[in-house]
Amino acid sequence: MLKNLINRHSRKVGLDSGTPLYTGDVPKKEVSISLIEYSQLNVEERQVSSISEAMNTCSENNITWINIDGLSNGKIMEDVGSIFKLHPLYLEDMLNTAQRPKFEDCGNYFFVILKMLYYATNKQDLNIEQVSLIVGENIVISIQEDKIGDVFDSVRERIRHNKGRIRKMKSDYLAYSLIDAIVDNYFVILEELGEKVENLETLIIKVPGPKVVEKMHYLKQKIIFLRKSIWPLREVIGMLIREENMLIQANTKIYLRDVYEHTIQVIEIIETCRDMVSGLLDIYLSSISNKLNEIMKVLTMISTIFIPLSFIASFYGMNFKFMPELDWKLGYPLVILVMLLISGTMLIFFKRKRWL
Amino acid sequence: MLKNLINRHSRKVGLDSGTPLYTGDVPKKEVSISLIEYSQLNVEERQVSSISEAMNTCSENNITWINIDGLSNGKIMEDVGSIFKLHPLYLEDMLNTAQRPKFEDCGNYFFVILKMLYYATNKQDLNIEQVSLIVGENIVISIQEDKIGDVFDSVRERIRHNKGRIRKMKSDYLAYSLIDAIVDNYFVILEELGEKVENLETLIIKVPGPKVVEKMHYLKQKIIFLRKSIWPLREVIGMLIREENMLIQANTKIYLRDVYEHTIQVIEIIETCRDMVSGLLDIYLSSISNKLNEIMKVLTMISTIFIPLSFIASFYGMNFKFMPELDWKLGYPLVILVMLLISGTMLIFFKRKRWL
Amino acid sequence: MLKNLINRHSRKVGLDSGTPLYTGDVPKKEVSISLIEYSQLNVEERQVSSISEAMNTCSENNITWINIDGLSNGKIMEDVGSIFKLHPLYLEDMLNTAQRPKFEDCGNYFFVILKMLYYATNKQDLNIEQVSLIVGENIVISIQEDKIGDVFDSVRERIRHNKGRIRKMKSDYLAYSLIDAIVDNYFVILEELGEKVENLETLIIKVPGPKVVEKMHYLKQKIIFLRKSIWPLREVIGMLIREENMLIQANTKIYLRDVYEHTIQVIEIIETCRDMVSGLLDIYLSSISNKLNEIMKVLTMISTIFIPLSFIASFYGMNFKFMPELDWKLGYPLVILVMLLISGTMLIFFKRKRWL
Amino acid sequence: MLKNLINRHSRKVGLDSGTPLYTGDVPKKEVSISLIEYSQLNVEERQVSSISEAMNTCSENNITWINIDGLSNGKIMEDVGSIFKLHPLYLEDMLNTAQRPKFEDCGNYFFVILKMLYYATNKQDLNIEQVSLIVGENIVISIQEDKIGDVFDSVRERIRHNKGRIRKMKSDYLAYSLIDAIVDNYFVILEELGEKVENLETLIIKVPGPKVVEKMHYLKQKIIFLRKSIWPLREVIGMLIREENMLIQANTKIYLRDVYEHTIQVIEIIETCRDMVSGLLDIYLSSISNKLNEIMKVLTMISTIFIPLSFIASFYGMNFKFMPELDWKLGYPLVILVMLLISGTMLIFFKRKRWL
Amino acid sequence: MLKNLINRHSRKVGLDSGTPLYTGDVPKKEVSISLIEYSQLNVEERQVSSISEAMNTCSENNITWINIDGLSNGKIMEDVGSIFKLHPLYLEDMLNTAQRPKFEDCGNYFFVILKMLYYATNKQDLNIEQVSLIVGENIVISIQEDKIGDVFDSVRERIRHNKGRIRKMKSDYLAYSLIDAIVDNYFVILEELGEKVENLETLIIKVPGPKVVEKMHYLKQKIIFLRKSIWPLREVIGMLIREENMLIQANTKIYLRDVYEHTIQVIEIIETCRDMVSGLLDIYLSSISNKLNEIMKVLTMISTIFIPLSFIASFYGMNFKFMPELDWKLGYPLVILVMLLISGTMLIFFKRKRWL
Repeated sequence: MLKNLINRHSRKVGLDSGTPLYTGDVPKKEVSISLIEYSQLNVEERQVSSISEAMNTCSENNITWINIDGLSNGKIMEDVGSIFKLHPLYLEDMLNTAQRPKFEDCGNYFFVILKMLYYATNKQDLNIEQVSLIVGENIVISIQEDKIGDVFDSVRERIRHNKGRIRKMKSDYLAYSLIDAIVDNYFVILEELGEKVENLETLIIKVPGPKVVEKMHYLKQKIIFLRKSIWPLREVIGMLIREENMLIQANTKIYLRDVYEHTIQVIEIIETCRDMVSGLLDIYLSSISNKLNEIMKVLTMISTIFIPLSFIASFYGMNFKFMPELDWKLGYPLVILVMLLISGTMLIFFKRKRWL
Repeated sequence: MLKNLINRHSRKVGLDSGTPLYTGDVPKKEVSISLIEYSQLNVEERQVSSISEAMNTCSENNITWINIDGLSNGKIMEDVGSIFKLHPLYLEDMLNTAQRPKFEDCGNYFFVILKMLYYATNKQDLNIEQVSLIVGENIVISIQEDKIGDVFDSVRERIRHNKGRIRKMKSDYLAYSLIDAIVDNYFVILEELGEKVENLETLIIKVPGPKVVEKMHYLKQKIIFLRKSIWPLREVIGMLIREENMLIQANTKIYLRDVYEHTIQVIEIIETCRDMVSGLLDIYLSSISNKLNEIMKVLTMISTIFIPLSFIASFYGMNFKFMPELDWKLGYPLVILVMLLISGTMLIFFKRKRWL
Repeated sequence: MLKNLINRHSRKVGLDSGTPLYTGDVPKKEVSISLIEYSQLNVEERQVSSISEAMNTCSENNITWINIDGLSNGKIMEDVGSIFKLHPLYLEDMLNTAQRPKFEDCGNYFFVILKMLYYATNKQDLNIEQVSLIVGENIVISIQEDKIGDVFDSVRERIRHNKGRIRKMKSDYLAYSLIDAIVDNYFVILEELGEKVENLETLIIKVPGPKVVEKMHYLKQKIIFLRKSIWPLREVIGMLIREENMLIQANTKIYLRDVYEHTIQVIEIIETCRDMVSGLLDIYLSSISNKLNEIMKVLTMISTIFIPLSFIASFYGMNFKFMPELDWKLGYPLVILVMLLISGTMLIFFKRKRWL
Repeated sequence: MLKNLINRHSRKVGLDSGTPLYTGDVPKKEVSISLIEYSQLNVEERQVSSISEAMNTCSENNITWINIDGLSNGKIMEDVGSIFKLHPLYLEDMLNTAQRPKFEDCGNYFFVILKMLYYATNKQDLNIEQVSLIVGENIVISIQEDKIGDVFDSVRERIRHNKGRIRKMKSDYLAYSLIDAIVDNYFVILEELGEKVENLETLIIKVPGPKVVEKMHYLKQKIIFLRKSIWPLREVIGMLIREENMLIQANTKIYLRDVYEHTIQVIEIIETCRDMVSGLLDIYLSSISNKLNEIMKVLTMISTIFIPLSFIASFYGMNFKFMPELDWKLGYPLVILVMLLISGTMLIFFKRKRWL
Repeated sequence: MLKNLINRHSRKVGLDSGTPLYTGDVPKKEVSISLIEYSQLNVEERQVSSISEAMNTCSENNITWINIDGLSNGKIMEDVGSIFKLHPLYLEDMLNTAQRPKFEDCGNYFFVILKMLYYATNKQDLNIEQVSLIVGENIVISIQEDKIGDVFDSVRERIRHNKGRIRKMKSDYLAYSLIDAIVDNYFVILEELGEKVENLETLIIKVPGPKVVEKMHYLKQKIIFLRKSIWPLREVIGMLIREENMLIQANTKIYLRDVYEHTIQVIEIIETCRDMVSGLLDIYLSSISNKLNEIMKVLTMISTIFIPLSFIASFYGMNFKFMPELDWKLGYPLVILVMLLISGTMLIFFKRKRWL
């Protein structure tokens, strides 16, 4: 995970700045562009093959949402760049999947880079995918690395069936809805994570073993990476709220504040998870120590009772010619008595020490 | 507790923002609305069945306090929303029990969301309930999740019997009194918590065992959640104090500052509890180590004394034909002497090592 | 200590704000009021029975210092309140011994709440007592919980014998002198504390045992509570320095800055103590581990030498009819030789492992 | 590494400030000066023997980049100083290799001091080399300690072959490109570091041993020094961005912001590495504890089974004349039965304790 | 060290503020005053017996540097006070050796209090000495506790032989030079410290023992005190740089910024030392655990191999009359075979567990 993260950066070393290079791990494949055009009265959805086609066919009076799946096709990104007159560095940022969450106001449009999180199909690995939103007047372009992990379906549904306010509002509200969908999705991830933390908790108290430490370690790593991905988002949405660009309307800001609060809650829950996992190590170490103590008690009890007894038995197993006790009639029962006394004393001693 | 917390969020994923959905754990039941109307001269208390009924029957010159128990009835909350022209997002905040403590100034009214804490009837689990206050001119609406855990009785008493300043003041003072009642109640929770911390302390020093670690862990978790619930309150009350809304009068601000100080004290005590519980783990681990050392000392002493003796006994238990010592008359007493010398030397060695 | 602290708060739960209730632990007894009236030329000291008597008999041109010992008599505090027209909440603050250090500017007077620390007569327990100062033009009222632990004697001496500047200055300098006396007294507490820390350090290195952990724990707690009591003082004195009230003259501010620096030094020393006590636990755990290692070495050495020897002895103690070695003339001396060789080898092995 | 670092400082103790003394570890050797002169249309590269020669031969209309390898020749640095009228202290800063990263605006030029990191040829030791950039109108002077570790080749290539924007821009863009090359190179270092962290992780889980702790320790140190070297860079580049010097053009600032973001990412990755290495110690200690437990289990099982059996065997090896069991016909098989019963019981006991 | 520090404070408890009392540990002895008067053209050095003598004999046009060694003579300090009209509190600060580093601007002069560090002659204990500088127009008075540890010789040399800029500059540059000499000297201390840290590191990895923990502890304490003494210096020099007093000329500020950077470097190195010493404890604990594991392995191996063998030997040492094996001809060699098989199996088991 760490190497993976660093590699995304180091793939770019030595290149000129502003070279748009996709640095993610998704294999090169066909890029798909879907377009939704809507106004308060009608919606139209279609697949297009190029950005310019999309731009030509949509009307100025409607809101147009162009969703691009796949970053590996450089041509399409260049088209996006030329239409919005994007600075090459910004284009590079969108393609560089190691980019931190970011907000940039460029006058007639602004763009936001976010991280989308989802569990891989095996429900084990946590994947991070970069999503960029370019928001202009009446247009929103959303750019994803891959189709998998798309969380925008709920937004599409609301547009299609005119649910809620979305069809009555401008492009800034659409952008908000997309950000909200991403942040909302974090809670799904956290639900999974919370379950893992609680499972681990039960496991540690019941069957502490070396496997548990490994699990704990990977969970901790997951939390570190989650934190690293989501932390800057707080600042980004904070900037959106303070932004004075005309594109962001006052009544959308209330919604952005709501998303901002959710982000803070996500961060707080991650911190809580971290605190809890840290606490688990302490429990683990304590229960390991306890187990060792228990083992040692058993060993010590057995040894302490039998070592003296064995000594006595060996003692009377000596072959000296002149050992008067051996000839006594009561020698044998007396030795048995002494042995019983010794073990009795020991047991009382252990009782007092609370080892039994 | 963690999963519980996250679930309250994830129940809302995919819904349109501003959808008023109750996300708490209280089962759906009848919502009850009680109303207290008072002025300096008279008080009237009654149960009403709907918000509009409440609004119609109360006079403009009195202070009206409407208390709603139960959030599951969406209709009532919608009524509240329409009367105050509440933004749908704010209505959602009040219903979303995962909401952080919050203050929002909306011109002709303001609202505050707080967390009320109380121990469940089994005196073990700590419950968190959300309380929202909507404060307008001459009116305060308080909304609770459930009837259990109501801490407003002391305020009701003061209104009924005209104790203190409450009947002479405006709605802002009533709001202050309600907040004060909630914050005051934290001290009751802390009293319980402090007792648990001190009990644990005694337990650890006297009988450290694996059960203690578990207890410590749950106590730590409780403190983490307490902290998480109360921390943002500081900011909320701080905003109330700095607020320039006409609804909050200058002489009420002195009282708010007092509540603010109490909140800081609550947070400081929680931090102190956390420091102390952290310290307990160190004591626990030390006392476990001490115990192990003690066990090992016993084992080592017994082994070190008897292993050489046993060897000697076994030695003279060998069946060689030609072992001259066995035929000596003094062989047996000499061996006993040697054994006594060895055990004596060992005991002196242990004395010096302070193992005895 | 923790419970004690919380109880002081929870005693007030459910009461109306501004109810002046003494929440300390000092039993109810006679309150004593002493008065010192002085100008550059003369001093007069007397006991008075009520505040109004004190106010009537003192001249406007002198500085009057009224010292009240004991908070349990509500009547006197009410008198103080009515003379200065103190807000009921401020009166409550002075009586509430759980109050944090505080400064409040009220125009024609200001008041400061501080914590006085002193060791109980058994030199073990650390007591915290609240001191309130009300400072008006030409008058200072100091209110203490109890007579024990009074640190103002040095100030009284300076007034009586006209030492230093005190008789030439105004009431703000008197207030400064009282604060200075309290802060100076912290160094006495710290001296005691520093000695305890250094004693513990010696103890741990010389005789680490379970008692030491307990001592360490209580010392740590003491430091936590000390820190909690003194930390807010920094802010309070900082506010006094920045204060623009006419009562505080410019040349007194230099003295206040001096006290401010002392407070910072007190806090720094407490932090240093905390760092050192934390470090002690590490030494303790290391020395415990070392001891365990030493014990294990002894056990292992004894076992490793004698277990093989015992085996050989037992071996030749077997009763098989056909064991040719037993009949050899050299069997016995050969076995002894083998045993010596084995123990020699073991000793060399231990030397190499540095166990000897 | 630590001593090395401090020595660089202490070599200067007692000297007058502004004494230009090279404090690095590179042995004294020939300094080499290379010059690249370029405009949008042409490039010229040559080696020069002195700064004044370089200054005389270059045209005012071109951008001139003078790269100096080697700091030990004081003469050349004095020339640089006199041409730019550098304050002696600034000259000293460039020569003092213990200097922190720094930015200073001096009106007609500004200078930046950075740290270049590279692995030594053995791929083990991390070297730190200081690079200073002096940027004036149309001129950039870069000063390195040594030729090894030069990371500017990619920039030279871009100038030579007119790739990207570099030939179209001013000296500020050249300076940016050089800083970018250095920061980009950090990712190569981090790649190496990340790999080491992950290798260590695998090693710890598979074969925890004393060597691993040493490795962990050196890795931790490396991270501490890396952090120390890179942390101030953030501030330096931040100052460059906020700088209002005419030399830094508005459109270059976008590029500087990009480098700024990279620096933050480098710092974040270093922090992540640190968190992970810290976590590794916990795993290590846990797995050591686990191993000890496992060893103790084996010892305890063997001892607990055989000690009682040995006792019984010794018991019937006693030589008392009157031991009736010895003469019974069934004595021997009965003893064997008892022994089997005892070991069976023990095995069941271990099963229950989950030791098997 | 801790007690020592606190005592310096508590010696003053109960005294009037502004009482000039020397609180250091240097025994009372003759105070020596040396004077250097210089201008760009000439230097004159002489010993004087009183401050007034010094003031009378020096010319207004020269820079006068008066160096006072020894604080115990109150008379001289009073003279200093009266000449500069120093506020009694400031005089007290200079004498109070527990004073934190401090800067105070008093219009026609300013003063700085610093800490000078030096190793005692035994090269073990770290001494802290207070140095005060009073800087007026054309005059600098430096006050030290004692002659030992004087680090101003390099400055004297530069004045005597007119090296560098010092003779061309004003009193503020002289003050800077003195501060610089003190800060430079910190690097000498750090060199010593760094060496100790690295020695400890080697020691821990090679021969971890209880002595090491003690050494570690004292080193940690030293670092804590160093940090405490130097940390406030940063702020003090920062204030000097921001100071707008005419006495500090613009071109001296560049030099002060240089000293400021050095102070930051000193603090950074101290922090690095602290991080490294903290890391050492972890290594120590790990290597102790490793050693314990190794010891336990040896014990367990020996026990596990010989305990079963001993049992077999004891078994056939039983004296039952009817033990058929004893009479078999092959009994003895069979038993030997069984024993070899058991030990072989055990050795294979240990190989697999990697204990060998």
